[in-house]
Amino acid sequence: MSSTDQRLERIVAPVKEGLSRMREVLVGQILESSNAVSDMTGHVQRFRGKQLRGALVLLSGDATGNSTDEHPSVAAIVEMIHLATLVHDDVLDGARTRRRVASVNQRWDNQTAVLLGDFLYARAFALSADLSSRLASRLLAETTRRLCVGEIEQSTKRFDFELTQATYESIAGAKTATLYSAACELGARYPGGREDLGKELAQFGYEIGLAFQIVDDCLDVVGDAEVVGKPVGNDVEDGKITLPVLWTYARADETRRARMRDIYTTVGLEGRRLEGLKSVCDLQGGVEYSMERATELVDRARARLGLLEAGPARDGLAELAAFVLERRW
Amino acid sequence: MSSTDQRLERIVAPVKEGLSRMREVLVGQILESSNAVSDMTGHVQRFRGKQLRGALVLLSGDATGNSTDEHPSVAAIVEMIHLATLVHDDVLDGARTRRRVASVNQRWDNQTAVLLGDFLYARAFALSADLSSRLASRLLAETTRRLCVGEIEQSTKRFDFELTQATYESIAGAKTATLYSAACELGARYPGGREDLGKELAQFGYEIGLAFQIVDDCLDVVGDAEVVGKPVGNDVEDGKITLPVLWTYARADETRRARMRDIYTTVGLEGRRLEGLKSVCDLQGGVEYSMERATELVDRARARLGLLEAGPARDGLAELAAFVLERRW
Repeated sequence: MSSTDQRLERIVAPVKEGLSRMREVLVGQILESSNAVSDMTGHVQRFRGKQLRGALVLLSGDATGNSTDEHPSVAAIVEMIHLATLVHDDVLDGARTRRRVASVNQRWDNQTAVLLGDFLYARAFALSADLSSRLASRLLAETTRRLCVGEIEQSTKRFDFELTQATYESIAGAKTATLYSAACELGARYPGGREDLGKELAQFGYEIGLAFQIVDDCLDVVGDAEVVGKPVGNDVEDGKITLPVLWTYARADETRRARMRDIYTTVGLEGRRLEGLKSVCDLQGGVEYSMERATELVDRARARLGLLEAGPARDGLAELAAFVLERRW
Repeated sequence: MSSTDQRLERIVAPVKEGLSRMREVLVGQILESSNAVSDMTGHVQRFRGKQLRGALVLLSGDATGNSTDEHPSVAAIVEMIHLATLVHDDVLDGARTRRRVASVNQRWDNQTAVLLGDFLYARAFALSADLSSRLASRLLAETTRRLCVGEIEQSTKRFDFELTQATYESIAGAKTATLYSAACELGARYPGGREDLGKELAQFGYEIGLAFQIVDDCLDVVGDAEVVGKPVGNDVEDGKITLPVLWTYARADETRRARMRDIYTTVGLEGRRLEGLKSVCDLQGGVEYSMERATELVDRARARLGLLEAGPARDGLAELAAFVLERRW
C-alpha cells in the first residue's frame, strides 16, 4: 500500500464500517445476470479509485450526527453516478487507460462504453428510488443534470482562450464540484437532518470539489503519467483551456499567444501538444497561481467546519479537504 | 398532414388534451438556461416522432379508469427517456439522420450526443422524483436498466448467425418492448390503480413493443428510405442479425450461408451491404415470416383488452396496436 493510500485510510478511519458496507452495496448493485454486462461491470470495478465522494457522504453524516443505516447505500449511489461519468468521460476524451486499467472504450468499444455508463446511471437511480426518503433521488437527479450541462458547456468552450476565470470555475464547478457538494449535503441531511448544516456542508463539498478539479487540471500539465495513472496532456490534446493555461495565456504577448493557439490546433501535433505547449511558454506561474486558488478554496471550506462539533469525523473532513491539494494520483 | 398522421390523430383523439399537456411538460422540461444546451434540446424536439409511448400512458390510464392529473407528466417522462435512448442509439449506430433531421452526432459530434442523452435521462429522473408517487421512478429506472442490458447484449451478438429466435426476441424485448410495457403499466397503475390490470396492460405493451421492433427490423431490409425517414440497411451495416435475416439464414444451404456471412464482414462493402445481401439471398420469406410473428403478437395483445370496459380509450389502444403493423415510417 502506498503512503498516499495509508494516509487516506487514516483519514476515513472514523467511517471504516460504513465504507465497507458501501462497497458491499456497490458490488451487489453492479452484478448483473447478463454475462456480457457482468464482464464489464467487473472490469470497471478495477478503476474504483479512492472513493472520496462515498467517504464524504459517510464523514458528513457522522460529523453532523446524522448517520443512518441508509448512509452506506447513499454513498454507493454517489459512487455509481461517479463511475458512470468516468465511463462516459473516457469516451468523450478517447482515453485509453483509467487508473492503470484499460478504459471501457479501449477494452471493448465506444458503443459499449456509452451503454455501460447508461446502465450504471440507471442502476444508481433505481437504487435511489428504493430508499426510504426521496431526498437522494431528487438531489442526485438534479446534480446529474447540472453535471451534464457543465460537460456540454465545457465542450462548447474548447479552444476558447478568451474564457474568463469565472466561466472556467463555473464549468469546473458544474462538472465536478456539484457531485462533491451533493455527497456532503446528503451526508448531513439525508433523510431529514438540519437544513442549515446541509447547506453549509454543500458549500464545503462544492469548494473542495472545485479545488479537486483545479488540482486535476494542474496534474494534466505537470503531473507524472506513472504517478497519475493515466496519460497526462489530455486536456491540451482535447482543446480544453484549463486554469494554468488560461493564466499563462492572459499574461503572454501576442506572439506567444499565437504560438499557444497554434499548438492547440495544428494538425499533425497529435500526442505531442503538451510537449509543444511547454516549449513555447512556461506554465509554472500558471500552475502556482492555480494551486494558490485551490488552497484558498480548501481553506474556506475547512473554515466552515467550525460549525460542527469536534470529533474524529470532523477531523476526517478537514484532512480530506487538505488531501485534495496534496494528491498526485 | 399525411394519411398516417391523420389516422394516428384519430386513434389518440380520446386523450387529446392529455397529449397537449404532455407536450407542454416536455417543452418546459427540456428548456435549459444554458444556451448551448437549449440549442441542442431544441434540435432534438424536431425528431419527436409519433409519441406512441406517451399516448400509451394516457390511453391506458383512460381505458382502465385510472387517469390522474399527473398522467401527462408520466407520459412526458416516458417520452424523455425514449428521446435519450434515440440520441445515444444514433451515436452507437453512427446514424446521420433521424426522422429527416440531422442526428445530434452529425449536427454536433459524438461527445455532445453522449452528454445530451445523459442530460435527458437526468431530467427524466429528476421529474419522476418529483411526482407524488414513487412508482414511476422505480419502474422507469428499472426499465432503463433493462433497456441498456438489452442493447449491450445486442452488441455482443453482432455477426452471430447462430442466434436463436428466442434470444433475438429476448434482446428486442429488452431494448424496445420494456419501455412500451412500462408506459402501459404506469398508465393503468400510477399512482395506485389495480395491480391485475397493471400486469395485463404491461403484457399488452410488451407484445406491441416487440411487434414494433420486428416491423422496424423488416423496414430496415425492405423499407423505402424516403418513407422511413432514415437510411435503411443500418442493421446489416452494423452487423445486427435481425429476424428476417435469421429466418433466411436458417433455411439457406452452406454456400449461401457463407455468402451471407461474407456480406456482413467483408471490408470495402461499407454502405452497400444491404444491396449485397439482397443479391445473394431472397429476404421476402423472412420478412413475411417476421410480419406473421408481429401480427400474432399484436393479436395476442389485443385479446387482453377484453378485460377492459368498452369505450373510446380501449378502442384507441386496440387501433394503436394494429397501427404498429401498418407503419411505414
